[in-house]
Amino acid sequence: MADQQAQTGGEKRPSEIPAIRWEEPPEGPVLVLLDQTRVPAEEVELVCTDASALVEAIRSLAVRGAPLLGIAGAYGVALAAARGFDVVEAARALEGARPTAVNLSVGVRRAEAAYGAALTRTGDPTAAAAAALAAARALHQEDAEASARMAVHGLALLDELLPGGGHRILTHCNTGALVSGGEGTAFAVALAAHREGRLRRLWVDETRPLLQGARLTAYEAARSGMAYTLLTDNAAGSLFAAGEVDAVLIGADRIAADGSVANKVGSYPLAVLARYHHVPFIVVAPLTTLDPATPDGASIEVEQRPGFEVTEISAPQVPFAGPGGGVQVAPLGTQAYNPAFDVTPPELVTAVVTEEGAVSPVTAEALAELCARARRVPVDG
Amino acid sequence: MADQQAQTGGEKRPSEIPAIRWEEPPEGPVLVLLDQTRVPAEEVELVCTDASALVEAIRSLAVRGAPLLGIAGAYGVALAAARGFDVVEAARALEGARPTAVNLSVGVRRAEAAYGAALTRTGDPTAAAAAALAAARALHQEDAEASARMAVHGLALLDELLPGGGHRILTHCNTGALVSGGEGTAFAVALAAHREGRLRRLWVDETRPLLQGARLTAYEAARSGMAYTLLTDNAAGSLFAAGEVDAVLIGADRIAADGSVANKVGSYPLAVLARYHHVPFIVVAPLTTLDPATPDGASIEVEQRPGFEVTEISAPQVPFAGPGGGVQVAPLGTQAYNPAFDVTPPELVTAVVTEEGAVSPVTAEALAELCARARRVPVDG
Repeated sequence: MADQQAQTGGEKRPSEIPAIRWEEPPEGPVLVLLDQTRVPAEEVELVCTDASALVEAIRSLAVRGAPLLGIAGAYGVALAAARGFDVVEAARALEGARPTAVNLSVGVRRAEAAYGAALTRTGDPTAAAAAALAAARALHQEDAEASARMAVHGLALLDELLPGGGHRILTHCNTGALVSGGEGTAFAVALAAHREGRLRRLWVDETRPLLQGARLTAYEAARSGMAYTLLTDNAAGSLFAAGEVDAVLIGADRIAADGSVANKVGSYPLAVLARYHHVPFIVVAPLTTLDPATPDGASIEVEQRPGFEVTEISAPQVPFAGPGGGVQVAPLGTQAYNPAFDVTPPELVTAVVTEEGAVSPVTAEALAELCARARRVPVDG
Repeated sequence: MADQQAQTGGEKRPSEIPAIRWEEPPEGPVLVLLDQTRVPAEEVELVCTDASALVEAIRSLAVRGAPLLGIAGAYGVALAAARGFDVVEAARALEGARPTAVNLSVGVRRAEAAYGAALTRTGDPTAAAAAALAAARALHQEDAEASARMAVHGLALLDELLPGGGHRILTHCNTGALVSGGEGTAFAVALAAHREGRLRRLWVDETRPLLQGARLTAYEAARSGMAYTLLTDNAAGSLFAAGEVDAVLIGADRIAADGSVANKVGSYPLAVLARYHHVPFIVVAPLTTLDPATPDGASIEVEQRPGFEVTEISAPQVPFAGPGGGVQVAPLGTQAYNPAFDVTPPELVTAVVTEEGAVSPVTAEALAELCARARRVPVDG
């Protein structure tokens, strides 16, 4: 493994640890990452002194999330250039760390192009390295600005749709500062509402199989001081039925030309629930997510991931026993919504099948009649 | 801990281990349970020689599921009687093992009443013990017969609703032989379809937080030789959207007089998805589940369970590393459906929020216009 050092957050307040930052200590520049595989159990920084350390961090998912991968890739090229390594070789290694991540490749190539252009123009590797770093910083800054603008637009929309304030927002997966150069997409909107005193509660789907909601969104909500509650993905239905959700806010991985939204599995059932309950379903994403080359939803190829994510439970990297004796996944102190059951109204039930026959449609009269008929059947024993 | 012995299944075929059975070895009767806390990692039998061992097994969830708890409770009373213990004391201890389980109490009281009546009539504790055992056996038998009849009626309904055969059925939680004196409720219908060669696939929801689908339904499906596939609960939406679900079959914990169905959390979202996709949503439950004293869904009090079931992942009692390096939850060899994303069509999206503003309603024209407008905005860097 390359020169990748870990240092614990120590005396720092959690909110002071950004997902990524460039530092210039006397011995040369480094890229400092929050190790997301250890969140929320520990806040540990990974210090990458060369591109191969960053490749390792990307592969191990210590750094993840589409926009953040692009920023990391750009800084990785800048790091290789600043430390005098072969920039083209580093760029290919970074791109190959997660070949399906489009943003990673885009970020890498942007910094690489800036490096190449400056080198051609000046013939000076130091000036070219500075150009690569400037490109990475620009990408970082653009992403942060896009986050801020999405938050403004999203909050305005929320206030328009829900004029009463006191929003109770349901979100899925992780869309905050851990995946962004700024404060993220959907999470940034919820955060803006929170800062304005207009967020009553953030409902956080745990987001099986990889539990990004339980691990990362709950961590970001806790850091921000939001009132938040964690739930299993299948408990969202009970919240809608109880009128506890005012809006759904999610991010997007890709938006086709017709407006079809590809996002973390579990988003679509929320959309159907939201429609059934007349609740707004709002997608927050930067323009780079819009893909005019994909005409519609059917044209979006959905990645099928390994089955073991479902058939096994992967413990976090730093497991320790929670108060219930299991492996703690969410931040300590996380409030959970955990109803054992939910209730389906008869108009949604096609038939009730019993040992005395089926009832369809399901009405009080038909059920009472079935019970009465059953009582007339002699019972032995 | 009382005299509760464990013996591994050893040379037995898995399908030969029932959830519960009464045995009469020379040294006195025993109640033999399949330890459900170890399924599917191991098939271990618990041999209870007295009621306190059974109380322990009920508390530890080694035996669980509403109808099965009733049967176990009745046998527990019979066991205390046969071994000459205080029957009333044993009955109270059994009832108290899981105080909210109505079926447990009903089963205990039925055997206790049979014991009391026979003792009053004959004055002979041996005859009274035989009466308690007869009552337990009758309950066991009735439950098995009810399962068989539900399967017949359910399969007839399926064939009526889906005349083409080749059913692809989605189920939630665990409703098979592990919770029943027979082959269960919803699972028994799927099993009947399988035996008739008319089940193309059983889609098994993992059923967070306690993973009864991944652990127990997958185990029962594997034992039965069904074609089955495990999925996270939130992936069901993708299956509906792809037209891969012909019917939903679930059990019920309680059915109110108006037909409202209380069942494991996650059932209601399936009902909404089924309605949206015009797929039958079928509830299979014995008549004892119908509760005329509860007028409607709003009157059903839903048990709120501890938050740590959500904030922690509880590993099975016999964890071993799966091929993916995590803790194996489902039976080895279980096929999984694990899409990373799902796709939400634009008609279900209220708005798309970007850094350049929001689009609502979401149409191809509005998105294209937004992109065109954004391209006219000068970009620095």
